[in-house]
Amino acid sequence: MPQVFITRRERFAASHRLARPDWNDAKNLEVFGKCSNPNGHGHNYELWVTVKGEQDPETSFVTDLSQLSRIIKEEVIDHLDHKNIDVDVSFMRGRLSSTENLCVAIWEQLEAPIKNLGCALHGVKVQETENNTAEYHGA
Amino acid sequence: MPQVFITRRERFAASHRLARPDWNDAKNLEVFGKCSNPNGHGHNYELWVTVKGEQDPETSFVTDLSQLSRIIKEEVIDHLDHKNIDVDVSFMRGRLSSTENLCVAIWEQLEAPIKNLGCALHGVKVQETENNTAEYHGA
Amino acid sequence: MPQVFITRRERFAASHRLARPDWNDAKNLEVFGKCSNPNGHGHNYELWVTVKGEQDPETSFVTDLSQLSRIIKEEVIDHLDHKNIDVDVSFMRGRLSSTENLCVAIWEQLEAPIKNLGCALHGVKVQETENNTAEYHGA
Amino acid sequence: MPQVFITRRERFAASHRLARPDWNDAKNLEVFGKCSNPNGHGHNYELWVTVKGEQDPETSFVTDLSQLSRIIKEEVIDHLDHKNIDVDVSFMRGRLSSTENLCVAIWEQLEAPIKNLGCALHGVKVQETENNTAEYHGA
Amino acid sequence: MPQVFITRRERFAASHRLARPDWNDAKNLEVFGKCSNPNGHGHNYELWVTVKGEQDPETSFVTDLSQLSRIIKEEVIDHLDHKNIDVDVSFMRGRLSSTENLCVAIWEQLEAPIKNLGCALHGVKVQETENNTAEYHGA
Amino acid sequence: MPQVFITRRERFAASHRLARPDWNDAKNLEVFGKCSNPNGHGHNYELWVTVKGEQDPETSFVTDLSQLSRIIKEEVIDHLDHKNIDVDVSFMRGRLSSTENLCVAIWEQLEAPIKNLGCALHGVKVQETENNTAEYHGA
Repeated sequence: MPQVFITRRERFAASHRLARPDWNDAKNLEVFGKCSNPNGHGHNYELWVTVKGEQDPETSFVTDLSQLSRIIKEEVIDHLDHKNIDVDVSFMRGRLSSTENLCVAIWEQLEAPIKNLGCALHGVKVQETENNTAEYHGA
Repeated sequence: MPQVFITRRERFAASHRLARPDWNDAKNLEVFGKCSNPNGHGHNYELWVTVKGEQDPETSFVTDLSQLSRIIKEEVIDHLDHKNIDVDVSFMRGRLSSTENLCVAIWEQLEAPIKNLGCALHGVKVQETENNTAEYHGA
Repeated sequence: MPQVFITRRERFAASHRLARPDWNDAKNLEVFGKCSNPNGHGHNYELWVTVKGEQDPETSFVTDLSQLSRIIKEEVIDHLDHKNIDVDVSFMRGRLSSTENLCVAIWEQLEAPIKNLGCALHGVKVQETENNTAEYHGA
Repeated sequence: MPQVFITRRERFAASHRLARPDWNDAKNLEVFGKCSNPNGHGHNYELWVTVKGEQDPETSFVTDLSQLSRIIKEEVIDHLDHKNIDVDVSFMRGRLSSTENLCVAIWEQLEAPIKNLGCALHGVKVQETENNTAEYHGA
Repeated sequence: MPQVFITRRERFAASHRLARPDWNDAKNLEVFGKCSNPNGHGHNYELWVTVKGEQDPETSFVTDLSQLSRIIKEEVIDHLDHKNIDVDVSFMRGRLSSTENLCVAIWEQLEAPIKNLGCALHGVKVQETENNTAEYHGA
Repeated sequence: MPQVFITRRERFAASHRLARPDWNDAKNLEVFGKCSNPNGHGHNYELWVTVKGEQDPETSFVTDLSQLSRIIKEEVIDHLDHKNIDVDVSFMRGRLSSTENLCVAIWEQLEAPIKNLGCALHGVKVQETENNTAEYHGA
């Protein structure tokens, strides 16, 4: 049966700092540059979650978009929006708040609940600025 | 020989309603929510058609974009733009006007004529709102 | 005291038809072109509401954006989103659903409640497509 | 002599928190909502600086855009980009980091140096999110 | 009678060079920087034309958008699109192809024909890149 | 080990003409249409370079974005920005300046230096106008 892909965009505004706690500020500055500013900085992140699946014969939907949006809000956006990623977000604890790690962590948050919707998580894309984006398609 | 992908964006403004004729309004509202408003609603749809192929040795083109654009206009846009998808569009007859079904139907409209251009249809992406997109890559 | 301007963007997806009931289809087609399609069409409208005022000395706000957003939702978006403008929207009754008339009608919906917020409505801008926009600044 | 307007866009990624130090967290939450998150949040701010003036008879320029851009970078962007607005930015000291105050403070930073370029500052617009923008045209 | 503003966006792709013929390459480089590259460069220009007027009592239109678009195409876009501004465009002859001069020249092209439509030209805005825009409102 | 994709956007403003030197103007016009205008035209090109790789265990980065950006600037943007592609760009010599050829040439410029960064070039996407894009993923 043919598969169709559905992508939902959501947004979150968050602050963060790139710095390893086992490095001093000079070392963090050398490696992470301005992203290691000790008092942090922030972004309007954009998130695109792509799922794939067969169409439901009754509704023609791959998935109910309102349920997909609800899951993304509950599992991801409510944790990240208007938060400090390094301090406030349990699923980022112990990880650097790089765009790469955000993609992987968001994938882990979403994989099971999206499977419960009856479709499969295909990709997680996070845009940090209009010039920088990361994308993850699972292990 | 290496393949290059070409994507052409087109747009159409159309109205529609998500509702099964064999369901009553209450059931349609329960499943399709505000998209089942009895008098309909509408969107500025954006459409991206991606083709792939080898480059022509004389022109370096995968395909002549003016011909690709003409085909998309004749086979898709002229049928959908400033129309009611549920009433006016022959290739959507008998199908719910979901973004998923639009992708599949547009694929069916374009697959043969694009093959006649000497390249292959690779993907059809339809954006219904800035937050919701569907994509289809064939059966 | 200096004035600052605040603009809030909202969106609504709606269907409509440009046609005068006292004209026949041929005459409507002659004047309104494809916008007079008998079964209608639709758009993702974007709306920018601009207010102006002095800053509150305690909060530095011209207005509380969450209240401004709530008013726009209650007075405008809830009436228009996922609706047929010509049939479902009480404040458009008896008016052609042109972008000009939408601007004026939205102004009328918002002028008093925004005054009650303690600031002044400055402009209403409605984008029908990425190429066509109307704007109104009051009588 | 006719005047022409020139607008330069720049961007900065910054973190901030809306909270009065003389209020407790509960009061700040009541007034500033999620923007008062104790550990802060952040945005990709977009800034549009508009100047006006007569055209130089030799170059036809209202102003040399590379000099205008340099001034905005030195006086504004270098202070705000990848910074915590509430802690790191001298010209925001003692002011709430609302979009209104950012507009006014950026105006104050730019008014004199742009006058030295031989044209006049006309407007400062700051977009905090795709839905929220503030604009200032001077006292 | 209240006035409404209508804005039409059009686009043109053109090449140009900023250089005075009475200056040598070194002097042009000093003043115009990389924009004086001897073999030229180019842009996807975006043009917004804003007209104002009272609404027609029969159609509710300030102006027929299809006629406004036709005038902009005939008087402006057909001259500039896929052209070299410095060589191919009669109404730019003898003027530096700066964004300022483009705005003024486009204003001159459009002022009379838009008056003939029964409304008034209000503004011409030309975007050269996503960061640089000029705007003109007449003498 | 799972792979993550990183995409960096850069921009360049350039002029070009589509025309084979072994064809006359009439033949070039017939095949390349308005893109063969003898005096050229131009675009604001947007370029997205996607790399893939495993995350560095210390930094969590697939690649240092500032180094990736520097490579793209040195190998691609500095050659193309504010240039005439047909005359000024050594790596486009002898090739038609089609979007397809730009993708392939930019891939060739970037493949080795990106490998030296420790990751792999995955895709090169070039947007010529908001409607036309080409993409290349290697031979």
